[in-house]
Amino acid sequence: MAGSRFAYVKNFELPDRLLPGTFLVLRVDGHSFHRFSTEHGFSKPNDERALCLMDHAARDVMDEFKDIVLGFGESDEFSFVFRKSTSLYNRRHAKILSTVTSLFTSSYLFRWSTHFPETPLRYPPSFDGRIVLYPSEKEVQDYFAWRQADTHANNLYNTAFWALVQRGNQTTTEAHASLRGTMASQKHELLFSRFGINYNDLPSRYRKGSVLLREEDEASASLPGDDTSNVEQDQEHPCQGIHNANVAAPDEAPRETVPQISKQGDAKRDRKTRVSPTIVKVLHCDIIRADFWLARPDLLSG
Amino acid sequence: MAGSRFAYVKNFELPDRLLPGTFLVLRVDGHSFHRFSTEHGFSKPNDERALCLMDHAARDVMDEFKDIVLGFGESDEFSFVFRKSTSLYNRRHAKILSTVTSLFTSSYLFRWSTHFPETPLRYPPSFDGRIVLYPSEKEVQDYFAWRQADTHANNLYNTAFWALVQRGNQTTTEAHASLRGTMASQKHELLFSRFGINYNDLPSRYRKGSVLLREEDEASASLPGDDTSNVEQDQEHPCQGIHNANVAAPDEAPRETVPQISKQGDAKRDRKTRVSPTIVKVLHCDIIRADFWLARPDLLSG
Amino acid sequence: MAGSRFAYVKNFELPDRLLPGTFLVLRVDGHSFHRFSTEHGFSKPNDERALCLMDHAARDVMDEFKDIVLGFGESDEFSFVFRKSTSLYNRRHAKILSTVTSLFTSSYLFRWSTHFPETPLRYPPSFDGRIVLYPSEKEVQDYFAWRQADTHANNLYNTAFWALVQRGNQTTTEAHASLRGTMASQKHELLFSRFGINYNDLPSRYRKGSVLLREEDEASASLPGDDTSNVEQDQEHPCQGIHNANVAAPDEAPRETVPQISKQGDAKRDRKTRVSPTIVKVLHCDIIRADFWLARPDLLSG
Amino acid sequence: MAGSRFAYVKNFELPDRLLPGTFLVLRVDGHSFHRFSTEHGFSKPNDERALCLMDHAARDVMDEFKDIVLGFGESDEFSFVFRKSTSLYNRRHAKILSTVTSLFTSSYLFRWSTHFPETPLRYPPSFDGRIVLYPSEKEVQDYFAWRQADTHANNLYNTAFWALVQRGNQTTTEAHASLRGTMASQKHELLFSRFGINYNDLPSRYRKGSVLLREEDEASASLPGDDTSNVEQDQEHPCQGIHNANVAAPDEAPRETVPQISKQGDAKRDRKTRVSPTIVKVLHCDIIRADFWLARPDLLSG
Repeated sequence: MAGSRFAYVKNFELPDRLLPGTFLVLRVDGHSFHRFSTEHGFSKPNDERALCLMDHAARDVMDEFKDIVLGFGESDEFSFVFRKSTSLYNRRHAKILSTVTSLFTSSYLFRWSTHFPETPLRYPPSFDGRIVLYPSEKEVQDYFAWRQADTHANNLYNTAFWALVQRGNQTTTEAHASLRGTMASQKHELLFSRFGINYNDLPSRYRKGSVLLREEDEASASLPGDDTSNVEQDQEHPCQGIHNANVAAPDEAPRETVPQISKQGDAKRDRKTRVSPTIVKVLHCDIIRADFWLARPDLLSG
Repeated sequence: MAGSRFAYVKNFELPDRLLPGTFLVLRVDGHSFHRFSTEHGFSKPNDERALCLMDHAARDVMDEFKDIVLGFGESDEFSFVFRKSTSLYNRRHAKILSTVTSLFTSSYLFRWSTHFPETPLRYPPSFDGRIVLYPSEKEVQDYFAWRQADTHANNLYNTAFWALVQRGNQTTTEAHASLRGTMASQKHELLFSRFGINYNDLPSRYRKGSVLLREEDEASASLPGDDTSNVEQDQEHPCQGIHNANVAAPDEAPRETVPQISKQGDAKRDRKTRVSPTIVKVLHCDIIRADFWLARPDLLSG
Repeated sequence: MAGSRFAYVKNFELPDRLLPGTFLVLRVDGHSFHRFSTEHGFSKPNDERALCLMDHAARDVMDEFKDIVLGFGESDEFSFVFRKSTSLYNRRHAKILSTVTSLFTSSYLFRWSTHFPETPLRYPPSFDGRIVLYPSEKEVQDYFAWRQADTHANNLYNTAFWALVQRGNQTTTEAHASLRGTMASQKHELLFSRFGINYNDLPSRYRKGSVLLREEDEASASLPGDDTSNVEQDQEHPCQGIHNANVAAPDEAPRETVPQISKQGDAKRDRKTRVSPTIVKVLHCDIIRADFWLARPDLLSG
Repeated sequence: MAGSRFAYVKNFELPDRLLPGTFLVLRVDGHSFHRFSTEHGFSKPNDERALCLMDHAARDVMDEFKDIVLGFGESDEFSFVFRKSTSLYNRRHAKILSTVTSLFTSSYLFRWSTHFPETPLRYPPSFDGRIVLYPSEKEVQDYFAWRQADTHANNLYNTAFWALVQRGNQTTTEAHASLRGTMASQKHELLFSRFGINYNDLPSRYRKGSVLLREEDEASASLPGDDTSNVEQDQEHPCQGIHNANVAAPDEAPRETVPQISKQGDAKRDRKTRVSPTIVKVLHCDIIRADFWLARPDLLSG
């Protein structure tokens, strides 16, 4: 063939298989979303539409990659954990990282108009991604706890900050100065005493982020043994377009799920481990305390 | 801080800096685009709109990442080479790979309606990406020659194949059988004798793919020493929306370039190496023969 | 400084930290030991001196690197597992791999004359090494079972092979042909019927390899809960020079342990995890069945 | 086979091929040689015997690995560069690193008694090793310049330091204090004015380290175009046992070269590139200035 004398360049591609038997945690992060959110008029400190859009993109990703067993999102980031035995793309690092980040990005744009029907995109947003390997369940649980603790801290800070700016008439510089060095309890107190805000009454979505996991399609309201006391359902803050799993939003073409990778994904995963069809459910529950994991003993076992 | 007892999980992130002094070649590939092209009614063997859309996304990427010195695209793939001294993101592998793949994807969707105004997206397309390191200019040149040789071979095959199907009334199975084992010269002969097609008269875009490189904004029509005899300009097949560099298509919001990464990119590259503003130009010229490189002795030197 | 303009070359050294929380298994293998054993007159199928020399070198390694919790050797190879929390050399891959392989090699030569007092070294032998990461205890146990199963298979084959050659007057080619395709049971039968050898009466060192682990210096003869029925002590085949742990062989200089790395090693490991001094003990016991691990529940826990 | 149910553990071994087309620089470093040199009575600041032993081990390595084109040693370290096209062990990182470090270590012990006939080894010394990749000749030249600049700086300091201690009756603490912050010129002056030492008259081996390269076996005294003014031959300070290449020292067994890897090494390298037999020669010449490289234009070309 004509090109064969150049084909040696393919020899520079090096294998990059990820260590077997470890959990893959893939996190996507919005690139320069501070600016993106300003340019597109996101509400501060939280924009319901933007959070629902993130959840929507994440659910598209989990619909496509069945070996993702759990997702967690806050602000402009989302984390996914693949079961440790996944053989997706033979565990090739670049292939998994780039494909998942690309699909998340693509869904973010594809679902944009559903969640921001009045706001045209002014330029294409992008995300970076990374994969971190964790050898044991304990570390995966602590990873998610780490992200949710981050959600708590950020949201408390941002809520106090924007209260000072929007209702306290401080400049952003002044607001930062007001909050410098304060403890969580002081921010709670400030919100309550100055603005009458009981922080714990804020929507759980803002305080706890979004937890995405699979349930069987019969969709029993609660899993056996589930401690529903710390589960706050999506119903509290329904997202337009993704509220009840895969129901298409009216302004979308009928073919709205993401089909192209499905066959390969199906072929590669062990069919025996997942027999019944599942749907991805969005919760805003605590995942720091052990209850969440105790109620789902098989979540990370596969 | 509340989350500090979990922060140890960050310790599992391992550094992934790419070897300094080597060229980074990043290639994105459409994921399951055989199906995607069918579902969205792409013309066969080549869809002018789809190729222009790829070029458009690629140019957005090159507008954003100034250390990319050359791009080459064909079909549903695009390759970019970064100058070997790039310190983009401190040469972190996952960061570069995921961000570039994400932006390419994002631009592909963002520009979709410009190139397919009549065809709504039915589902979000995705791309995978990979980075390969090349130590020397010779290997980079051979890499691009390898891709363009691939373009030649694929396009000749596909042109003959679809002629047999569309005009020769063969089934796809019959057409594959007709072409099995044929030499390039036999396919040329078949196209000419049976269908009156002189293969070399086909648009250079189809036969040679798209070559994206930077020119100074004064945009002299030809570079000094350039052998224009093998350069076929974009004018032959103008792409809607990207024809003359950054001119916005009319149906887009005025703010159409990709701003969010620019500042960082600017800060990180060596300002001395690129003083004058450049625009990205699309050519459909030969890059296998030495002429292309001889006319641009500094292209890979930086 | 004079050399500072060249110091940029240090920037090409890339970090290579091994994933935390995983067991490091390091295996050294004799390089071209088929020839080495022939040139130095090793007995076939097993040379007691050579095996004791390997054990001796392995014990030097374990005396030096306190985070190795278990070693297993057969023929010209030895495997070591580091506890999963080891922070030796900050888990730098090349540093650990090269230093341990080097020390093993060095000890092999240093101890040579103890075990081969009549046989001068004709040329310097070498070993290669590799590190494999295992995320869980189960995989580490299976790794060691894999090596011991290999010992069984190889030793049975070699015992039958050399019986045919040495006592059956077959050529090596004929002996290989005789054994081709035979089952283990057939080799047992052949050894017994033709040569009166009851394979299971052969020294356990030959059949099971060498298991090196730590015991407290009080050196109680058996660990609590140990199933001694499958433990065959070193006493059966005492090794000259290493028989009872660190007692120096008479023909060695008094200073015979390996001091140079100790301080660093001590400094780096967590002092709390190993309080009492330990000695390395050599056993020739079964490590395939669960008993070995059940008797030592903490062996891989650290 | 009995062990097959455990063989899955082999799947955790990940490929580690080094990027093609790059120079491999492998450096071995003595482990805790400060102590080792004290325990074995090395002369300060330089021990002729110890340096010759290092050269000897290095030459054994280069006799074995024909793709090493240049070596450089000082103190307790040695660097080797493999030609960039080497396919040794399919460029597997751990295999190359561990085998070369092991052979260097092994030769160091094997040759010990030749260079230290009166000094028995008290314990086994070890070396660590690392491999760094360099994409171009320029960087390899700068790497070696960096090491030789280090030799200059260290040797000047050590010479001054030990003069102050041995002849100036300073304590080591005082000597360090005397030298703190001094320029090179001040150390030259101190050596000359206080101790009558003209630094530049010291043996070139001490000031410039050892440069090992191959010459054809006809061993013409000078290479064509060689600038012999900066080449100081080994004859000035002959090393016992390695003076004229592979001549065996009298107290060694006749079979003193390292045979075991040779066949594989020969098979793997491109026979066309090295037709005539070569010997490894030890020089103590300048490799910082361009002359060395200009005189050997093909040294790094292969």
